[in-house]
Amino acid sequence: MTVVLAGADSAPRFDSSTRLDAYVAAHEFDRPTLVIDVDRVETQYRALKAGLGRADIHYAVKANPARDVIARLVKLGSHFDAASRGEIEICLGEGATPDQISFGNTIKRRQDIEWARDSGITLFAADAEEELEKIAEIAPGSDVYIRLIVEASEADWPLTRKFGCDGDTAIRLMDYAKSIGLKPVGMSFHVGSQTRRAEMWAPALDALAKVWHAAKAAGHDLTLLNIGGGFPAFYGEAIQAPTDYAAAVIEMVRARFGDVPRIMAEPGRGMVAEAGVIVCEVLLVSRKSDRDVHRWVYLSIGRFSGLAETEGEAIRYQFATPRDADPMGPCIMAGPSCDSADVLYEKRPMPLPLTLKAGDRVLIRNTGAYTSTYSSVCFNGFPPLQVVCF
Amino acid sequence: MTVVLAGADSAPRFDSSTRLDAYVAAHEFDRPTLVIDVDRVETQYRALKAGLGRADIHYAVKANPARDVIARLVKLGSHFDAASRGEIEICLGEGATPDQISFGNTIKRRQDIEWARDSGITLFAADAEEELEKIAEIAPGSDVYIRLIVEASEADWPLTRKFGCDGDTAIRLMDYAKSIGLKPVGMSFHVGSQTRRAEMWAPALDALAKVWHAAKAAGHDLTLLNIGGGFPAFYGEAIQAPTDYAAAVIEMVRARFGDVPRIMAEPGRGMVAEAGVIVCEVLLVSRKSDRDVHRWVYLSIGRFSGLAETEGEAIRYQFATPRDADPMGPCIMAGPSCDSADVLYEKRPMPLPLTLKAGDRVLIRNTGAYTSTYSSVCFNGFPPLQVVCF
Repeated sequence: MTVVLAGADSAPRFDSSTRLDAYVAAHEFDRPTLVIDVDRVETQYRALKAGLGRADIHYAVKANPARDVIARLVKLGSHFDAASRGEIEICLGEGATPDQISFGNTIKRRQDIEWARDSGITLFAADAEEELEKIAEIAPGSDVYIRLIVEASEADWPLTRKFGCDGDTAIRLMDYAKSIGLKPVGMSFHVGSQTRRAEMWAPALDALAKVWHAAKAAGHDLTLLNIGGGFPAFYGEAIQAPTDYAAAVIEMVRARFGDVPRIMAEPGRGMVAEAGVIVCEVLLVSRKSDRDVHRWVYLSIGRFSGLAETEGEAIRYQFATPRDADPMGPCIMAGPSCDSADVLYEKRPMPLPLTLKAGDRVLIRNTGAYTSTYSSVCFNGFPPLQVVCF
Repeated sequence: MTVVLAGADSAPRFDSSTRLDAYVAAHEFDRPTLVIDVDRVETQYRALKAGLGRADIHYAVKANPARDVIARLVKLGSHFDAASRGEIEICLGEGATPDQISFGNTIKRRQDIEWARDSGITLFAADAEEELEKIAEIAPGSDVYIRLIVEASEADWPLTRKFGCDGDTAIRLMDYAKSIGLKPVGMSFHVGSQTRRAEMWAPALDALAKVWHAAKAAGHDLTLLNIGGGFPAFYGEAIQAPTDYAAAVIEMVRARFGDVPRIMAEPGRGMVAEAGVIVCEVLLVSRKSDRDVHRWVYLSIGRFSGLAETEGEAIRYQFATPRDADPMGPCIMAGPSCDSADVLYEKRPMPLPLTLKAGDRVLIRNTGAYTSTYSSVCFNGFPPLQVVCF
């Protein structure tokens, strides 16, 4: 298993050596804009699929629901993981068929289950009795999979306990699902966002396999294993290349679960992040005091207009400016709003050119995932992040 | 100075004893909706103005830019603090005149300064050399006030160091502003959001007064003091009633600054929070494990669809349900998205009825400020928070 700098060729720079860079260099943008190279999404889909083999890719629409992205994935034969009625509507609108879509949110409004049923959706996630009761009442006979909490995460972003249930509860819920007329066909889990290397999946897969085999021993005919997301994007730290990564995960699954008839994988970030770049600008560079060591650099985009994942400085994006050949110095970075929480990087200042000034263009690399949809409607009167696909 | 439970009569309940409750009780809402009683905004404006006397209220538009709210405030003679071109456009569109609007964001895009100048705006905030240079170049001769950092906050939400500069820098910036053709007319600061009692302003006002008098001694003719926001709303903890609060602050200002020709106050939260209630519903109540002490309650609204201020559990909203007469038990609360960060209250669980279940209506009290605008465009395919003014 070779660990390579999968994104090494997308290290910060400000030129036009990729198709994305060439497009951005040739265009002006009057407001912060996410530019997505849809061909790059296709390349990534093919790379992941080559490793995943017969497993179905259910693209996690929430990562980026741009219609051009969905349309291309439909064309490639992708399936979809939808979090809401809104996302299902987009997928169906771009030509996906209902059997290609799973309603993967474990928290569904009764009316949305009804609408999904009427639209032909037959596969639902659940992690609680009340959710199963809603599905059984509204869409009797549906296939359901039970989501487990897996605590043994090695991800950069381990998940909270918001989703899933423990192993005992899962088996009890499968019994219950059957008793109220549903088909409990399998299980799902999530290894945690941005799990950088395949071997980091081992503890979570081990934990899930125990519950899986216990459920089978208890008489459940399990035919569906949903391994969720966690597929990484390059944010500056080495990640394994997508085909190797996916193949290694699938091999680990086979070793623990045998030949499961249906395997689902839900890449979101790992599918689209590297296909996008945000173009924005510097609004102000300042020092608060003569004694301040660091400059403050304020961008035209912030936590409430697209960069929500900088919360807690969780994801450190890579920035490129036309002055990157000049000497660099550490900066605190912040967004444009009159909100004191709209600070991007302060605990670990970011190196930026000492010559940087208001009006300079800034590229934020590999921002195709979890940016446009997190953008607020109009916080502080700033319009939402614009999206351009090409 | 009497400290009263200003919001005691808006303590959680689920009836129709106020105009807002009556409206909500009489209507159905198919998605999470913020309902604003514009008369209640007027009552609050009058109460604050009664205490502030001749100081100008510059409503902080970012707290809630609903057109009906702005229109009513224009009618009442309010002035406005705008964070962006978008907010200035709303104010002008509802009939405010340019002299009633200050461009209070210290981080302004060059093109937006230009647009504001052409729209007749003549008062700008700044806290850095480069910002002054932009204003001097684009809108020469403008009035500017310098924003200071005041570290001595006793607010519930002390601000970060994102805005303002220290005292030495402020005086240097005033000299610089004059040298490049601007009129440095005054100073501003912000005591911190949700400063619950007037006496909590004392340390900040003391710190500001030192710089103010030093600037005067250095020859600056200061005519404008902008005391910013910080005016509180009732979120369950006692706050001082608005007229008493405002009068006490103004008295503290007079004692430290004398008779300043022009005083600006920028209530945002303190103007609109109590005029709004969010109507949403329970989507799911569950337990993750037989060993779990707390239930999880999932609402149809979360951190990315309006409740951004629950980040770090900073603001604890008050919830009301039709089952509040039933026995209560502690709950972890979360939003509807497939995002593990979309958790509202976990460190300090919230008491909710043991009988609560999917489909139940939930009211979230005093949510008129910093909710609708924080809402994301479509995260997870959920539409933004709907706003109804009446």
